[in-house]
Amino acid sequence: MPAKDFYHDTVRVALEKDGWLITHDPLYLRIGKYKTYIDLGAEKHLIAAEKGSEKIAVEIKSFIGQSDIDQFEDAFGQFLIYMTALAKKDPGRILYLAVPLEFYNRFFDDRFFVELAEQFKLRMLIFDEVKQSIVKWKK
Amino acid sequence: MPAKDFYHDTVRVALEKDGWLITHDPLYLRIGKYKTYIDLGAEKHLIAAEKGSEKIAVEIKSFIGQSDIDQFEDAFGQFLIYMTALAKKDPGRILYLAVPLEFYNRFFDDRFFVELAEQFKLRMLIFDEVKQSIVKWKK
Repeated sequence: MPAKDFYHDTVRVALEKDGWLITHDPLYLRIGKYKTYIDLGAEKHLIAAEKGSEKIAVEIKSFIGQSDIDQFEDAFGQFLIYMTALAKKDPGRILYLAVPLEFYNRFFDDRFFVELAEQFKLRMLIFDEVKQSIVKWKK
Repeated sequence: MPAKDFYHDTVRVALEKDGWLITHDPLYLRIGKYKTYIDLGAEKHLIAAEKGSEKIAVEIKSFIGQSDIDQFEDAFGQFLIYMTALAKKDPGRILYLAVPLEFYNRFFDDRFFVELAEQFKLRMLIFDEVKQSIVKWKK
């Protein structure tokens, strides 16, 4: 089991407030010969006439510490590898990178990274680290 | 200027042995608001009737230290970001990740990562760290 990220509990609370049921903490994922874990698995029952439920996996990054660009490079590489593995193993589950609002605001004011995120389908869940709530989803 | 990678000089020698002229050491690259450097820029004059020259940028990773998967995640994220930035700034220059043979052999015996590299167009230059020579190009 990996060490829990600094904002692990914050994101868990934010998801629960938003009506998600946490189903995995962490979520096991085999990547080639490696055993890895995505921080959280969650699901939400769809409303009205829709059948079934929405399933997500959430990888949490605090972005505290080394330089923003170094941390983003790491998170970005990991996200794409997990996304590729998850698409094979559990194609109905969508991966999100949980990103603290403060980091999101200062890093994604840069057009290059906004376009990069779109190009590589980097899905993000932006959370308010103080209010412990979800601010927006970038799908 | 960034710290030089452990295998910086090894890869430089290997490229020169292979007929490349090192033109940048390092190669400056602007990524959004960040100033970064790719380890080497090199070019080689094309033979025969072909005009011009082949230009490459080489990012060197030693893959010594932390776990293989962690190091690969970092290198992979960085490669894709540099590749995207380079394609905008200098589209005639092709980015390669220089990978030591020993790491290549033990990491890419895994079908998942072979397919991942193909899917994301991860171009690699595999070098023999003892003989200081290029073993193969994955284009």
